[in-house]
Amino acid sequence: MKENLNALFCPENIAVVGASGNPAKAGYTILKNLTGIGYPKKIFPVNKSETEILGLPCSRSLSQIEDTVELVVLITPAAMIFDIMEDLKLRMEKQADIKVIICAAADYGETKTAEGIQRQNCLMETAKRWNIRVVGPNCIGVIDNVNRIDTTFVETHLPRNARVKRGGISFISQSGAMAASILMMGDSRPVPMAMNKFISIGNMADVDFIDLLEYFETDEDTNVIGMYMEGYPQGRLLIETLARIARKKPIVVLKVGRTEMGAAAANSHTGSLAGADAVYDAAFRQYGIIRAQTMEDMLNTLRALDAMTLPKGNRTFIYSQAGGPGIYCMDAYMEAGTMELPTIGSQTRQRLADSLPAMANICSPEGYADITASASVEQHVEGLRSVLDDPAVDAVIFITVVPTFLSRKALGEALKKLLQEEGYIKKKPVYLCIMAGIYVHEVRSILEDSGIPTFDTPADCVKTAGHIAMYQCFLQKEAVWNEA
Amino acid sequence: MKENLNALFCPENIAVVGASGNPAKAGYTILKNLTGIGYPKKIFPVNKSETEILGLPCSRSLSQIEDTVELVVLITPAAMIFDIMEDLKLRMEKQADIKVIICAAADYGETKTAEGIQRQNCLMETAKRWNIRVVGPNCIGVIDNVNRIDTTFVETHLPRNARVKRGGISFISQSGAMAASILMMGDSRPVPMAMNKFISIGNMADVDFIDLLEYFETDEDTNVIGMYMEGYPQGRLLIETLARIARKKPIVVLKVGRTEMGAAAANSHTGSLAGADAVYDAAFRQYGIIRAQTMEDMLNTLRALDAMTLPKGNRTFIYSQAGGPGIYCMDAYMEAGTMELPTIGSQTRQRLADSLPAMANICSPEGYADITASASVEQHVEGLRSVLDDPAVDAVIFITVVPTFLSRKALGEALKKLLQEEGYIKKKPVYLCIMAGIYVHEVRSILEDSGIPTFDTPADCVKTAGHIAMYQCFLQKEAVWNEA
Repeated sequence: MKENLNALFCPENIAVVGASGNPAKAGYTILKNLTGIGYPKKIFPVNKSETEILGLPCSRSLSQIEDTVELVVLITPAAMIFDIMEDLKLRMEKQADIKVIICAAADYGETKTAEGIQRQNCLMETAKRWNIRVVGPNCIGVIDNVNRIDTTFVETHLPRNARVKRGGISFISQSGAMAASILMMGDSRPVPMAMNKFISIGNMADVDFIDLLEYFETDEDTNVIGMYMEGYPQGRLLIETLARIARKKPIVVLKVGRTEMGAAAANSHTGSLAGADAVYDAAFRQYGIIRAQTMEDMLNTLRALDAMTLPKGNRTFIYSQAGGPGIYCMDAYMEAGTMELPTIGSQTRQRLADSLPAMANICSPEGYADITASASVEQHVEGLRSVLDDPAVDAVIFITVVPTFLSRKALGEALKKLLQEEGYIKKKPVYLCIMAGIYVHEVRSILEDSGIPTFDTPADCVKTAGHIAMYQCFLQKEAVWNEA
Repeated sequence: MKENLNALFCPENIAVVGASGNPAKAGYTILKNLTGIGYPKKIFPVNKSETEILGLPCSRSLSQIEDTVELVVLITPAAMIFDIMEDLKLRMEKQADIKVIICAAADYGETKTAEGIQRQNCLMETAKRWNIRVVGPNCIGVIDNVNRIDTTFVETHLPRNARVKRGGISFISQSGAMAASILMMGDSRPVPMAMNKFISIGNMADVDFIDLLEYFETDEDTNVIGMYMEGYPQGRLLIETLARIARKKPIVVLKVGRTEMGAAAANSHTGSLAGADAVYDAAFRQYGIIRAQTMEDMLNTLRALDAMTLPKGNRTFIYSQAGGPGIYCMDAYMEAGTMELPTIGSQTRQRLADSLPAMANICSPEGYADITASASVEQHVEGLRSVLDDPAVDAVIFITVVPTFLSRKALGEALKKLLQEEGYIKKKPVYLCIMAGIYVHEVRSILEDSGIPTFDTPADCVKTAGHIAMYQCFLQKEAVWNEA
């Protein structure tokens, strides 16, 4: 049934059962998102009492749609599932075309009530009989920015196609609310974050972490995998799957239930056995699975992994335009304990002394430079070039509070030239933090539009750089074992 | 000379030496900011080669200004200090009016060069002779949003008066770059952050932490004090001052140089003896001085302290609209270890059961509720009311990812009614996180415009609520000692 998952991301026509003409309903937003992202094939709204929604003619039921339908989205009140499944049988007996159902509606098994469980059973029994894969129930749907699918009911005022950009991040979320928040956070960046595939799995009545991880494992469009998880009934199998894939593609996991009370809350929510967190944590470390602690940390690390090459090691230089932010960054760096300050060679030191302002602090302490507020755009960039050219440096954290008298735009263009056009970012990762807030959206957009990630704070750079350095150490250890 | 500091925040006329008509120069931005914020008295640009800048007639020198001048801002190349001080003598011999100099220019003592030190000595000797207080050199200046002063050269595209709102936060920064970043971060919030007084002290050649702390101690407009520090030569005196004031007004400190390497970088920067961090840290804990770890944490805690009442204790309830964000918050809460989950009474439990959706999780675990995505606006708010009414609850962390089918604006208005109009926020603090990003700016603005702080993430709520709970514990301990 694995091939059926193709129909989740690249279906031949989609039916939305419970589509609505009322903008306050999820069944309206799903249609709006699907049409807005530019889904190239046919969309069939199913609604008994409307004739047309967003210009699309409505069908009265699934069985009445004459064209092929491979993907069905259900956003009807849960109690209607019995009738819908009856109708689905009619269709499958005749056309046998549906391959995937996304049951976005809630009020199924997650309620732990007899009614809810019965509804979920009805859905699953019908689906199994016809070899239909089910996503959900109780999920927010699927986005594929390459195949232009968006079945979510997360309302955004960005044009959906603003996100359509070929990124290689694919993401799985167990929680719909976290999934929605992650999408909204991604949209709020200086340049909206473009995931490749994004899926909210809800109750995991059928399609679950392992199905999707295995799908992403061989998916050529997926370079990096992110997941938010609360728990999973077959922990050992999940870890084995993650461990196998992490050797090929980096995986970043935000797993909650880290604490006893967090686990207790998770248990009430998804019934997950979250007490096993220590086991997960140890396994994540052992198998090079990156564990993020916050949503921001997870998204930052995914973006950096997708956009930049891996470093050769963990020797990461701190290159700051100002003392305060540099010291602030150094504290976070040392507390993280994930990286080493490199000792650059005398030639690099000389190059820095020659190019930077006389007041610049070069390597006091080692692995650190403060180029000072008097540094010009050229000095910002040429100093960075010198540091990147040094073989003792595996990566650089670059921080600047662009002074009033420098053009932020000129700095953005100069950094873009060095990193993207001259290809430095393909050799070593550079974690850029241009402070702060709305005032630097333009310069960050120049960089991000050209594929160079930027970060909100020095601490964000440190966390992400540390995760990636640790992942690189894991891969190197693996390589040594494999040779031995 | 303490009264002279009044002229820093409320001067009778201001001269800007080094004012410029070139928008790329700091001397232009200072004039633009001063006029933009609506400084109500006279501004005198001093520039030998221009006749008028931004509609203000230029003077050729300080001594040629006929009106009274109490505050002088210097933004000239450092080498000109000798001539300017000669001219200043001429003025003081005649008019004796200048009370404060803000030396924004750099290239003084901080360079540790003979020339730099000589320049700073020239400035200080002249100032001392005439009892003039000096802020800087090497600083970004002063803002007073009540008296409408802004001598900074931080360029913003917000109308300066967007920040003019009566807040009670006064802030001192040792680093100009951190100060600029903090201002830009504050401007980037859903509602720009309005500090009361904001001052960057640079080299502290004269006006330093203690001067300003003592000023804020008795300043009726200051409710909460924030500071960014790298080091201070008289640590014991600083701690004594902080300890005395913290009993009356909360103080939030972001002190860098926490780590050995951070301290080494600080030492190169300000020559501060940062090795003393452990001593500072212990003193902060002992005397109820709140230590923030990040800029965001510091600003959040300042905002919350300024806007809300202190809790009676540390029993903080987590009230979430969704499972994922609730569990995520619980992990952060337990890891912080600063608060206790309250056990609410059976009456409150009944009220929640009566008002919340049937699927809601009420108190599993204790001190936690998940009202679920099916909760209406009214249920969001009435549930919160029930929790706040319970005497076992000292504070609430409230998290929601507003579902598509609920009006965010209606939720904002309903929360504003409960918290501000019905006065709940004057009884107990409520830390609101409405997720996420740009999509919730409008609802957050409704709340913040009415004086209710909101937070970006559940983790931000936890950090701030924890700091404030700890501060409250300190005050209670103090009260017990005082009675004993």
